[in-house]
Amino acid sequence: MKHNLDSILLSHGSGGIESQNLITELFYPFLEGCVIGDGEDAGIVKMDSNICAISTDGYVVSPIFFAGGDIGKLSVCGSCNDVAMMGAKAKYLSASFMLEEGFKISDLSRIVESFSTTLKASGAKLVSADTKVLPKGSLDKIFITTTAIGEFLYPHLRLSAFTIPTDCAIIVSGNIGTHGAVIYSNREEINLNSTLQSDCALLYPILEPLFASGLNLYALRDATRGGIASVLNEWARASNIGITILDSNLPILPQVQGICELLGFEAYNLANEGMCVLSIAKNDAKKALELLHDNGAPNAAIIGYTTNKNPKRVVLETAFGAKRFLDYPSGELLPRIC
Amino acid sequence: MKHNLDSILLSHGSGGIESQNLITELFYPFLEGCVIGDGEDAGIVKMDSNICAISTDGYVVSPIFFAGGDIGKLSVCGSCNDVAMMGAKAKYLSASFMLEEGFKISDLSRIVESFSTTLKASGAKLVSADTKVLPKGSLDKIFITTTAIGEFLYPHLRLSAFTIPTDCAIIVSGNIGTHGAVIYSNREEINLNSTLQSDCALLYPILEPLFASGLNLYALRDATRGGIASVLNEWARASNIGITILDSNLPILPQVQGICELLGFEAYNLANEGMCVLSIAKNDAKKALELLHDNGAPNAAIIGYTTNKNPKRVVLETAFGAKRFLDYPSGELLPRIC
Repeated sequence: MKHNLDSILLSHGSGGIESQNLITELFYPFLEGCVIGDGEDAGIVKMDSNICAISTDGYVVSPIFFAGGDIGKLSVCGSCNDVAMMGAKAKYLSASFMLEEGFKISDLSRIVESFSTTLKASGAKLVSADTKVLPKGSLDKIFITTTAIGEFLYPHLRLSAFTIPTDCAIIVSGNIGTHGAVIYSNREEINLNSTLQSDCALLYPILEPLFASGLNLYALRDATRGGIASVLNEWARASNIGITILDSNLPILPQVQGICELLGFEAYNLANEGMCVLSIAKNDAKKALELLHDNGAPNAAIIGYTTNKNPKRVVLETAFGAKRFLDYPSGELLPRIC
Repeated sequence: MKHNLDSILLSHGSGGIESQNLITELFYPFLEGCVIGDGEDAGIVKMDSNICAISTDGYVVSPIFFAGGDIGKLSVCGSCNDVAMMGAKAKYLSASFMLEEGFKISDLSRIVESFSTTLKASGAKLVSADTKVLPKGSLDKIFITTTAIGEFLYPHLRLSAFTIPTDCAIIVSGNIGTHGAVIYSNREEINLNSTLQSDCALLYPILEPLFASGLNLYALRDATRGGIASVLNEWARASNIGITILDSNLPILPQVQGICELLGFEAYNLANEGMCVLSIAKNDAKKALELLHDNGAPNAAIIGYTTNKNPKRVVLETAFGAKRFLDYPSGELLPRIC
């Protein structure tokens, strides 16, 4: 930035010359090669098919930098993952940045760099963006909202939470609860002397071989706020089925388990940002698991199955055969987890 | 809302049962009839043409309720207007709501109602939405980010800030500076004992007859942050033309002029939220003005023209023939104007 500024000024949000400078001097250099549009009021894009998937999320995570990611990476992964859950590949992304007066330019640069790196990895192009600056105290540092617009490269897919049959396998694509555990320990400055990192990642690349395989995939859902407990309860209700989860099959990192025991959490309630739950025909489950293991998801595991017993409920079965209902999480959980 | 709650709790943002209740009990009733999608991770939509216009904006206006509108109405008008400026009609909208813990449910209801009423008026459907709740003090009350996705019903239109020829007329679709003046006076509790209201409105309906007319329209821009001064300077630079504005032709309400004189503002720097600037062939200007006057823009006026003199600059000419450069606004102007 010109004038060696080290923090965001209110004038950066005024719509005048300083706003232009912020965009052209800080945002554009990082985003080179992945921006469509040239200063018009809206980006004009071409969709190759007439059908697209659209998803919007606001990102307000605290701390904004955490082990394994930051709010910039998270804001790209999160919305790209949401359209991936419908089987669509993010083609365009739009973003709104809200900045607090006094926010460090060096921190903003790190975030925009990380945002851009992730955007390039996704293959999507930024088609519209907006930056607002608010007086100090009006918001905490930086919030980002992104919208992903995805195309269906595998039109045979019919993914829906509402039509999951009984007799499916339930798979998770990776370890559970890692993002939530990282955010909590980073926030509370719990020094675990560990290398634990958020799972924050793009999911489309690990799922595409599965989409191409023709296996009978019924539903996908990334297990963000509310963890896999929320996803499983939503599916059980939406498809009027029972779901049984085998506690001992849940892949949980020992460090995450440790944090859970320390703080009284359950990993199945904690947020994930690069892990999804899959519902797939039992006969295809082993093949699906192999495809996941071979394509960037080495910790994917079959964790349970759907059934016609206990419709609309999720049952957790321990290694000793004890069973209890796994309910929707309720209460405050962790605010600002994503 | 159940339990007679009167304010937003952190648990409303946890992704669990309370989040579901907030959506189904507060948002859905207002949004009935204008929502696509049913609880999947992304909305699936059909675009009738392959080309679409996409625009995202974050809305952080303060105060959240102002004469003539509120943050809900503004957040729909703003993004729908941005795609309208490319000649596209908003077909889908996505929205992210960020709420402060303790925010009044009654205020949220007013805002969601106003959002829904405006959405219905626009004809667009809500395709994806997200709600985050942050601990008290993390943001000021409520922020909304919307993304509009628009279709081109008049494919002959070629609107661009970069190809405006010299010898065009410059038209404004209504009085200038009204939104900015209202926000400032509402915020500062300047009691003007007046009926002055923000111009916050959808622009597509007043422009559609012009799109259908076949008149030579070159560029459109809604004059939000930075006012018409920003738009005119952007156009002059982008198209490498000069623009001359006739001071005495600028339509300014007497109350807005009064606020400007009181506070040392210029109306051409103040934000508008339902007014746009048009660049149109001189020969077509009179016909365009008639169409605007007949279709909900009674105060539209020809305010100047493009020229090959003073390329990249805007000149303001007074009634007495004096001339001076009208520059890009700079400095802080009004934060949180939109």
